[in-house]
Amino acid sequence: MAAGSLQHRRDLALGLGAELFYDTPLEIVRGEGVYLYDSDGRRFVDMYNNVPCVGHANPAIVSAMAEQQATINVHSRYLHEGIVTFAERLAGLHHDGIESVVFSCSGTEANEVAIQMARVVTGHRGLVCTDAAYHGNSELVGSLTCVARAPSEIGEIRGFPFPERYRPVVDGPSEEELCQAYLDRVAAAIESLKREGAGFAALIMCPIFANEGLPEIPANFMSRATDLVHREGGLVIADEVQSGYARTGRWWGYQTTGFRPDIIVTGKPMGNGLPLAATAASKDFVDTFRANTDYFNTFSSSPLQAAVGMAVLDEIERLDLLTNAADVGGRLTSELKERVSLHPAIGDVRSYGLFIGVEMIKNNVNREPDAVSANLLSNHLKDRGFLVSYAGKFNNVLKIRPPLVFSQDNADDFLGAFDECMGEMSG
Amino acid sequence: MAAGSLQHRRDLALGLGAELFYDTPLEIVRGEGVYLYDSDGRRFVDMYNNVPCVGHANPAIVSAMAEQQATINVHSRYLHEGIVTFAERLAGLHHDGIESVVFSCSGTEANEVAIQMARVVTGHRGLVCTDAAYHGNSELVGSLTCVARAPSEIGEIRGFPFPERYRPVVDGPSEEELCQAYLDRVAAAIESLKREGAGFAALIMCPIFANEGLPEIPANFMSRATDLVHREGGLVIADEVQSGYARTGRWWGYQTTGFRPDIIVTGKPMGNGLPLAATAASKDFVDTFRANTDYFNTFSSSPLQAAVGMAVLDEIERLDLLTNAADVGGRLTSELKERVSLHPAIGDVRSYGLFIGVEMIKNNVNREPDAVSANLLSNHLKDRGFLVSYAGKFNNVLKIRPPLVFSQDNADDFLGAFDECMGEMSG
Repeated sequence: MAAGSLQHRRDLALGLGAELFYDTPLEIVRGEGVYLYDSDGRRFVDMYNNVPCVGHANPAIVSAMAEQQATINVHSRYLHEGIVTFAERLAGLHHDGIESVVFSCSGTEANEVAIQMARVVTGHRGLVCTDAAYHGNSELVGSLTCVARAPSEIGEIRGFPFPERYRPVVDGPSEEELCQAYLDRVAAAIESLKREGAGFAALIMCPIFANEGLPEIPANFMSRATDLVHREGGLVIADEVQSGYARTGRWWGYQTTGFRPDIIVTGKPMGNGLPLAATAASKDFVDTFRANTDYFNTFSSSPLQAAVGMAVLDEIERLDLLTNAADVGGRLTSELKERVSLHPAIGDVRSYGLFIGVEMIKNNVNREPDAVSANLLSNHLKDRGFLVSYAGKFNNVLKIRPPLVFSQDNADDFLGAFDECMGEMSG
Repeated sequence: MAAGSLQHRRDLALGLGAELFYDTPLEIVRGEGVYLYDSDGRRFVDMYNNVPCVGHANPAIVSAMAEQQATINVHSRYLHEGIVTFAERLAGLHHDGIESVVFSCSGTEANEVAIQMARVVTGHRGLVCTDAAYHGNSELVGSLTCVARAPSEIGEIRGFPFPERYRPVVDGPSEEELCQAYLDRVAAAIESLKREGAGFAALIMCPIFANEGLPEIPANFMSRATDLVHREGGLVIADEVQSGYARTGRWWGYQTTGFRPDIIVTGKPMGNGLPLAATAASKDFVDTFRANTDYFNTFSSSPLQAAVGMAVLDEIERLDLLTNAADVGGRLTSELKERVSLHPAIGDVRSYGLFIGVEMIKNNVNREPDAVSANLLSNHLKDRGFLVSYAGKFNNVLKIRPPLVFSQDNADDFLGAFDECMGEMSG
């Protein structure tokens, strides 16, 4: 009742269509570690939220936030040790050649910076992304999503079919042939941009194609695509908003899928809930960006962002969450893969560390995506106390992406609930 | 020495050209109320920062931030009482018909929402802004700045000369004629958009033209421009990022300059340093926006934004900062206006509440702008412990925009320093 009334007030205050999870939405009032609690005191295991990566209400983050806000929090036109140290530490987590950082408040803003940077560095405007990409909500960054919705040519943007082995773009190929087929699509997109006059600035990709549904990528595609982009005079932007920060069991998704991006965008988990994002690149690229744009962002490069950002990195290291993501994610994936042969509705299980996709299908003959089942399963799991969602080009891939403090016990409990739900759905 | 080394590290970590105030930059390490302290323990009166509107390190804000982060801070796809209550309170501070709010993280993001909203509501894309506007740094919003830099036609954007009485666009007119002259320029911009095919979506303005240098606006321009826009089928977007939140002695700049915008953007002071911004409009417009965009913003509409945002509103009311802005700003303005006749270098003093512009000129004959003097004066004032900057189309308008807790004693101290600096510069 209370939630019903709250939802009605919300429809007015935030407008109709402000997104809500689950057929019966949850009113979440408290969080702790991997757990969320609703207004009736019911506990849920959070298996969706990557933002609170070191745990909901993590006391070290609360302290860092409060102490900094009580000391100084002001814009970046004064010198401040903290923000420089944070930028140095963040750049140091990447490969040589990534030296400088532009901070911002959201993944959208950081992708705006990345694209503007690629454009001023190359002198060209054309962008290539996959046909199921999502990189943010500004007009520019949002137009990358539009390419996914409509066929592949919108002004200065070209889409290509995301690389995958489950529904390959050509029939029955070898892995090498399949890789080449996707590379050919990228090359055609670049060629189209050059032919139509936009020129080619950048290929932008999530290193694990999270929104595309975590596809199994044909071997060597990422490094060969990077080589192709460089030969064509463009830059590779890695959108690590979902794949970065220990999610895959390594610091960065690009380390897991094997390529070296020129510009790296990070966001969601950086501030454990504080708006914080960054665009990292060579000093040369960042200097060129700053010289051409006079970029300034009131709330970013702030002492508050730096203090909280440092505390998050400290917690990831102190709790050894890289190892946890690899170990717990790996074991949960193995268990789920065993379910593929037991349930015709499960077409595939794919994962990188603590990011797992379960592909729901109508049958195993033509692999027809089953978005209804994915939605139903997420609602059933919610009723049993486990919060997941779904993603993918067809909205049929169960999306399991818990805070990095998710434990093996949590995974075991989840598997019990998962088996019950699957039994119920097939019964 | 320490600052020099820090600056060198900053040039690498953040890239060359990350903006710094003053010829010798300050390393600020602590803040309290209206005061900032540098690494040598020296105290400065902050007369620039509007973000910490209820004071640096305000304990009520620190508490609200820490308590909420320690309780729950998660995205908006779950129901949460706090964010709905905050949206209701914010909408309630506007006139009837402003009912719903889209939250975001920065003024740039909120202006993106406003423009996208105006476009989906009107079905047209063309935008009109002044020739010295700044509304943010994304590609779309940043292109409004470009109109200011180059003459007035860039794709779907048209600029018009900002309305002012100090350097009027026509010679020796009556106030009524001058108002009409500026309205004619707006009408021409709209006509050009319609003729060239973009159609007309919105006029976007800061209600006090802060970046333009706080001009004295010809009487009735704002309301008559609003009428004109509506007759032409467009919407008026008020960018209240600088003018809103009690700055002018009223809640909103548009109340001070007398018009009723259709879409209202707020930002900087909303979170006292927490990234927080909002776009408010009628429910009908917000519904239409959401239905057409599926807008979602990970860090916004969060319990943290709501808790901090509510605490800021509480502090503005508890400390009666509306009255303080009107009273202290009014008296400081009167004192500064008395200096105009004493110093040929001061061409004009203009203000709205605690936002004051001092126009620096080379001589009183042709009113030639003097950016060098404005810069010199801000550096001299800094050396005496008072932090200001400068703005305006010609970068020659001293910009005085302190936290709203700035007191009459602060103002008196500043006037002493101001007189010393002016004496020194003319000596």
